Amino acid sequence: MSQITEVQGNKLSGVFQHPAVLGALQQRLNGLVGKPSSYIADLPADVKRRVDALRNFQDKHSELEAKFREEVLALEKKYLTQHQPLYDQRAKIVSGDVEPTDAEAHREPEEDDDEEEEKVRLTFNRGVVYPGLPTFFILFRTLIMSNRKNQKTASKPSDKATKGIPEFWLTALKTNSAISEFITERDEEALKALVNIKYAYLPDNPGFKLEFFFSENEFFSNTKLEKTYFLINSPDTSYGDVVYDHAEGTKIEWKEDKDLSVTVEVKTQRHKTTNKTRTVKKTVPAPTFFSFFNPPKPPTEDDEDVDEDIDSKLEMDYEIGELIKEKIIPHAVDWFTGKALQYEDDDEYDEFDEDEFDGGDDEDDDDEEGGAGADGEKPAECKQQ
Amino acid sequence: MSQITEVQGNKLSGVFQHPAVLGALQQRLNGLVGKPSSYIADLPADVKRRVDALRNFQDKHSELEAKFREEVLALEKKYLTQHQPLYDQRAKIVSGDVEPTDAEAHREPEEDDDEEEEKVRLTFNRGVVYPGLPTFFILFRTLIMSNRKNQKTASKPSDKATKGIPEFWLTALKTNSAISEFITERDEEALKALVNIKYAYLPDNPGFKLEFFFSENEFFSNTKLEKTYFLINSPDTSYGDVVYDHAEGTKIEWKEDKDLSVTVEVKTQRHKTTNKTRTVKKTVPAPTFFSFFNPPKPPTEDDEDVDEDIDSKLEMDYEIGELIKEKIIPHAVDWFTGKALQYEDDDEYDEFDEDEFDGGDDEDDDDEEGGAGADGEKPAECKQQ
Repeated sequence: MSQITEVQGNKLSGVFQHPAVLGALQQRLNGLVGKPSSYIADLPADVKRRVDALRNFQDKHSELEAKFREEVLALEKKYLTQHQPLYDQRAKIVSGDVEPTDAEAHREPEEDDDEEEEKVRLTFNRGVVYPGLPTFFILFRTLIMSNRKNQKTASKPSDKATKGIPEFWLTALKTNSAISEFITERDEEALKALVNIKYAYLPDNPGFKLEFFFSENEFFSNTKLEKTYFLINSPDTSYGDVVYDHAEGTKIEWKEDKDLSVTVEVKTQRHKTTNKTRTVKKTVPAPTFFSFFNPPKPPTEDDEDVDEDIDSKLEMDYEIGELIKEKIIPHAVDWFTGKALQYEDDDEYDEFDEDEFDGGDDEDDDDEEGGAGADGEKPAECKQQ
Repeated sequence: MSQITEVQGNKLSGVFQHPAVLGALQQRLNGLVGKPSSYIADLPADVKRRVDALRNFQDKHSELEAKFREEVLALEKKYLTQHQPLYDQRAKIVSGDVEPTDAEAHREPEEDDDEEEEKVRLTFNRGVVYPGLPTFFILFRTLIMSNRKNQKTASKPSDKATKGIPEFWLTALKTNSAISEFITERDEEALKALVNIKYAYLPDNPGFKLEFFFSENEFFSNTKLEKTYFLINSPDTSYGDVVYDHAEGTKIEWKEDKDLSVTVEVKTQRHKTTNKTRTVKKTVPAPTFFSFFNPPKPPTEDDEDVDEDIDSKLEMDYEIGELIKEKIIPHAVDWFTGKALQYEDDDEYDEFDEDEFDGGDDEDDDDEEGGAGADGEKPAECKQQ
């Protein structure tokens, strides 16, 4: 009799989810909040004594929690070894090294995601379709899907020429809106050579490593680019947690004039007295997905000039890595087909520029249908700005 | 050499984290997004065949994921049985039924959260203190702590009279800003009688139950109020997840004129012809924390009038329940002392009314110090409004 509704969240990890780099903020607060210790110190002595006992119990609790996290990590490692054969089969089919057997490729029609099945699921969910539709979301998702479709149709090769599943990982990554923001047009050419992404846990650290495998391409000579996230146990044992330490990435061996992390400006200069001309090349940093392999460095205590945005840069860098590990790799085919969009939460749309749809015009507020989706997302927070 | 930064997230659950009730949105989208199936149908036949094979692998992957979630839930249950003796000891000390032994109450001074220790931790974290302090957060947290302190000092009883730890759970709940929004002044009197909160897993359902225990009080006759969240496995096996089904709460047996969910307006009326007067009582619904035990109902397919906000109400109801299970119960003493505020992410401040601090005045933008904390939270999202 009740509607079935989705419980969000990454499904694989209970330990490293939804990270944020709050260390600096916490440290700033540590010395400045209203001194909980004096609040406690003002309690009657016998009450203070009882609170101290509870704090000791809490320390024991934290030790148990640390063991729990270790057991969850062990479970994650165990399941990765079970998932890996499926990932390996997938990689061979994507690259075209192996053709699926008829049994492997056979799919019952009723299992397919065609429109009929959507209707069946709608009924099964016993849900309600409201008259006021969130046009913003529908527009956005429709645009994504139609863009993908047009692109695919335009480059559609003849059946004979197609090896494996072309642009499988590029398409999967671009379907995730958080990741697609980092992929430039120039990046797309290079990411067509991306033939697999794997992740692995580290032997001596609770972090993880991402491995991007590339076929030969005109941009760089590396066949594998790695990104490793190192985590450590929190130094505060009484509210223990696993915390971010730092990340490392492979140095990319760019081929000549193919470095996607810069653009080259060529200028012709004429010497004032000799009147000779010469060309001057100036390299300017350019945004690229491949800066993912050159992660931001957490500030050290010796740093004089600290990037004001370093916290959010570190947080974003970790979130993209976790997203690839938790969502893209485990469900890559659903990102390729677009099915994953139906199950995603809306957090990934946070950064999306709404102006492209509603012109950022506040006068449009009476257009209730058009504004409902965007405005409804985080009403309390944004309306107070 | 690197700064230690906090990785956010609930630590105990890998399965039911950060829930949101998106069913209705998904259903609205299911019939309306740009038909991924036709995008796939347009692929060359041999590529389509390979994609079908990957979809079959994905189905096998989903079966493994379901087993993983079951194992994590089993782990959570196992650890709850290990945590429970600590929770039970805590409850006896909070109620005053048991005094801690000297060994239990003994705390090394260096373990305490006094200012000295904060400085040590600051050094150990090797962090950087920026000159631009997030005044908004500091103000807010300082206000919370000083309010708590004043309140405590005002009602400070003599040592002899104090039994257990008075207002332990009320203080812990109020320290969490998301929960404190639901606690009215009238609620506080009733919540002083709250002597324990427990959670338990359900025998035949992946959900959980919260149990609130009350000492005798003037408001209601129940000694235990329960709130149970029922979850079910997603009907879509190929992107399986655990989803919210519905919640149930204990009916509160309010004592006469003590129902906190209503306010009573008394009016005197005079009969026009007889000139006699009578008093009329009118009950008006009032906001109260105790509406937590009367949860919103998910709409059924037969519902004609669906509450427009039902999705966010269901989501909020689930989030409060999960917050109590994942954060308040496991670390209650840290919420009581305020220590938990130092480790919390900032999500809980989303709903906070910033106008109380900056007057909502856009002209204050040049006051960089005052605006940094609030503006920095979700910059991309809010600046586009």
